[in-house]
Amino acid sequence: MTIQSFIPPRRILMGPGPSDISPQVLQALSRPTVGHLDPLFISMMDELKQLLKYAFQTKNEFTIAVSAPGSAGMEACFVNLVEPGDKVIVCRNGVFGERMRENVVRIGGEAIIVDDEWGAPVSTDKVEQALKDNPDCKILAFVHAETSTGALSDAKALGELAKQYRVLTIVDTVTSLGGVELRVDDWQLDAVYSGSQKCLSCVPGLSPVTFSAKAIEKIQSRQSPIQSWFLDQSLVLGYWSGEGKRSYHHTAPVNSLYALHESLVMLQNEGIENAWRRHQDMHEKLKVGLEKLGFKFVVEESSRLPQLNAVYFPEGVDEAKVRAHLLNTYNLEVGAGLGSLAGKAWRIGLMGYGARPENVSLCLKALEETLTN
Amino acid sequence: MTIQSFIPPRRILMGPGPSDISPQVLQALSRPTVGHLDPLFISMMDELKQLLKYAFQTKNEFTIAVSAPGSAGMEACFVNLVEPGDKVIVCRNGVFGERMRENVVRIGGEAIIVDDEWGAPVSTDKVEQALKDNPDCKILAFVHAETSTGALSDAKALGELAKQYRVLTIVDTVTSLGGVELRVDDWQLDAVYSGSQKCLSCVPGLSPVTFSAKAIEKIQSRQSPIQSWFLDQSLVLGYWSGEGKRSYHHTAPVNSLYALHESLVMLQNEGIENAWRRHQDMHEKLKVGLEKLGFKFVVEESSRLPQLNAVYFPEGVDEAKVRAHLLNTYNLEVGAGLGSLAGKAWRIGLMGYGARPENVSLCLKALEETLTN
Repeated sequence: MTIQSFIPPRRILMGPGPSDISPQVLQALSRPTVGHLDPLFISMMDELKQLLKYAFQTKNEFTIAVSAPGSAGMEACFVNLVEPGDKVIVCRNGVFGERMRENVVRIGGEAIIVDDEWGAPVSTDKVEQALKDNPDCKILAFVHAETSTGALSDAKALGELAKQYRVLTIVDTVTSLGGVELRVDDWQLDAVYSGSQKCLSCVPGLSPVTFSAKAIEKIQSRQSPIQSWFLDQSLVLGYWSGEGKRSYHHTAPVNSLYALHESLVMLQNEGIENAWRRHQDMHEKLKVGLEKLGFKFVVEESSRLPQLNAVYFPEGVDEAKVRAHLLNTYNLEVGAGLGSLAGKAWRIGLMGYGARPENVSLCLKALEETLTN
Repeated sequence: MTIQSFIPPRRILMGPGPSDISPQVLQALSRPTVGHLDPLFISMMDELKQLLKYAFQTKNEFTIAVSAPGSAGMEACFVNLVEPGDKVIVCRNGVFGERMRENVVRIGGEAIIVDDEWGAPVSTDKVEQALKDNPDCKILAFVHAETSTGALSDAKALGELAKQYRVLTIVDTVTSLGGVELRVDDWQLDAVYSGSQKCLSCVPGLSPVTFSAKAIEKIQSRQSPIQSWFLDQSLVLGYWSGEGKRSYHHTAPVNSLYALHESLVMLQNEGIENAWRRHQDMHEKLKVGLEKLGFKFVVEESSRLPQLNAVYFPEGVDEAKVRAHLLNTYNLEVGAGLGSLAGKAWRIGLMGYGARPENVSLCLKALEETLTN
C-alpha cells in the first residue's frame, strides 16, 4: 500500500489551541532551513530573545523558547527549580494544576495542594493560609489562565504573596501570554512558561520560558543534579547565550523558531496592550451572541478569560454531533470540554490571529444555523 | 527598536545536520494547521506510524515521533527503560555515547563504560567481555552511527550479543536512519531513537522512536515511576494509539509532523534500499574528490559512514576561515569538528535530500577554488 502526501483542509481554529495561524507565519515557517550554528541564525535567536522579553514584559536575560511543547516547558521549570524533598504549594483549579502536582511528585518533591473549584480562580486567601501553614515551603506554583476552564487567576496578587513569604513562583502562562495582561517583572514572577500555539498564534511545538535572577540563583545553588539532561537549563543557557562561542546542546527546531520570530514581530508591530484589548473586544462580541443562543459561561465575569470561552451549551444539544457538524460543514473547530467539563461544556478559543471579527461572526452564524435546524 | 521579519538565505547544508530539505517537504510544512485532535490529523498520525515502521524496518506497534529533538528521544528511551540502580553498559566512542552515560547517571542508574577510540566503531569483543563481567546488567546502550566521528558500529552483532546475554538494547540511530542499512526487527533492537533532521531530511525538532515488545514489557513491569511526565511513553502511547478515543497528553507539533510525513512518503517512494545505495554512491564520488584535494578520512573504510564524512583537512588550512569563506561565498555549510575533533577535522554531511550529485560537485569545486587560492 502506498501512502500519499497529506493535504489538510483549511480549518478555522476556535478551540483551545492550536489557534488560527496567520499566512505570514506559515510563510516564515517554510523559509529555507539554515544550520543551527549559522551566524545568521544565531542573530535571529538573539532577536527572538528580545521579542520574547517584550511579550513577557521582562528584562530577564534568561528568556528563551524550549524546543518542545508547553508541557515540556512546564517540566523544564519544575525539574530545574524543585529538588527532591522540596515543599511546593500547587494551586489546582483545573487540568493543568493537577499536571503541576504530577511534576512535583515525579521529582520527589512534596506537593501541598490548594484546591479551588473548576471554573473558579485560585483563591489568594487559601494560598496565603497555605504559605502561613508551611513556612518551610520553597515554591508556589499556579496557572495564570486555566486552559481547561477559562478561568483567570490574579497572578499579580499571587506574585506579591510569594515575595512576602519569600518563596519562588512557577507560573503557567500557556494560554495567557499575548492574550491578557501579563507583566513578569512588575509582578515579580520567577519561572514562567508558555506555549507557541495559543495567543502567539505560532505553530505548536515550542515553549517560551523566562527565569528571574532569583530563579537562576536557585538553580545555581542546587544540592542535587537536575534529573533531565534535555531540560537542564544550565546547559541550554550556553546554547542560547549571546556572548562568545555557543556551546552545542541540541539541534534547535530551526523552522519553528522562524515562525515564532515572525509571530512575535507581528505582536511587536501591533503593540502588546493593543493585542490584549483586541482579545477583550472580540470576547465581548462573542459573548453577546453566545448568550442570545442560550449558552452560559462556566466562569464568572470577573475572572473570565477573553481568549478561552468555556460555555455550557443549551439543553438538549447533542454536543459531539454539533461539533462534528461545525467541523465537517463549516471547517470550524471549537473545543470539547476537558476533565470534569468533558461532555458538559465547550471551549471556544479567540486566540491570537484567531481573535478577529470574521471568526466571531462566522462562529455565531454557524452555531445559529446548526442549533436552529 | 523595531525588529524585522527574518529572511534567511538559501544555504546548501552539508554539515552534520540539519540536512538539505526538499522544497516538497518545506511546502508540506507550511500547509494550514489543523487541530491536533482533528479526525483528519489522527488519520495522518496513523499513516505516519506506518511510514516510520517502514523506515525502521519494524513491525513494532509502538513506533512514533517524540515531539522534541533527538536528544529528547534519547532521554525518552533512557527514562522509560532504566530504573534507579539498574546497571547499563554504555559504549562510548564519541560525543553521543558520553551523553548516554549522562542520561544513565541522572536517572540514578549505574553506567558501565566500554570505551573505544574516537573514530573507531564499538568493539564487540569489549562489549562481550563487559556482558560477561556484569551478569546483573540490564541494558546495553550504543550509538549506531556516531555523528561526532562518522563511525558506523555493527548494530546487528551488538543486537545479537544483547539477546545472547539477555539484556535489552538502547540504540542511537539519529544519523543512521534512512542513510545506511538498519533493520530493527531482524537485528532484535529494543528501544531505538532517531532524529528528523539527518537522513530523513525533515526539519529539526522531532525524534522518531520505536520500542519492541520486550521494551514495552520492561516499562510495564517497572518498580519505580518514570521521572519525566513529558517523556512518559505509557502516557504518550494513549495519545498516538489508533484504537478508540485518544487521550490528550500534549499538543503535537502539527506542522512539523506534516513535514515528517512528507519526507517519509518520499523515502517510501524511493525505496529504502535505494536510499541506502544513493548515500553510498554519493559518498564514493565525494571521497575520490576529497582525497585528490588532500583530505584524509578519520574513520577506516570498513566502518565509515557514507552520510557523515569526517575528514582531516590538508595541513596549513585555516579551518575556521575556510568554512566561513564557503558559507559566505557559496552559501555552503560544512560542519566543524566536535569534541576531541574540534579544530582538527570537518564533518561533511551527505544526508537525505542533501545526498545529490549537484551538492557533491559544488562542494568539491568550491573546496578546490578556496584551497588553491
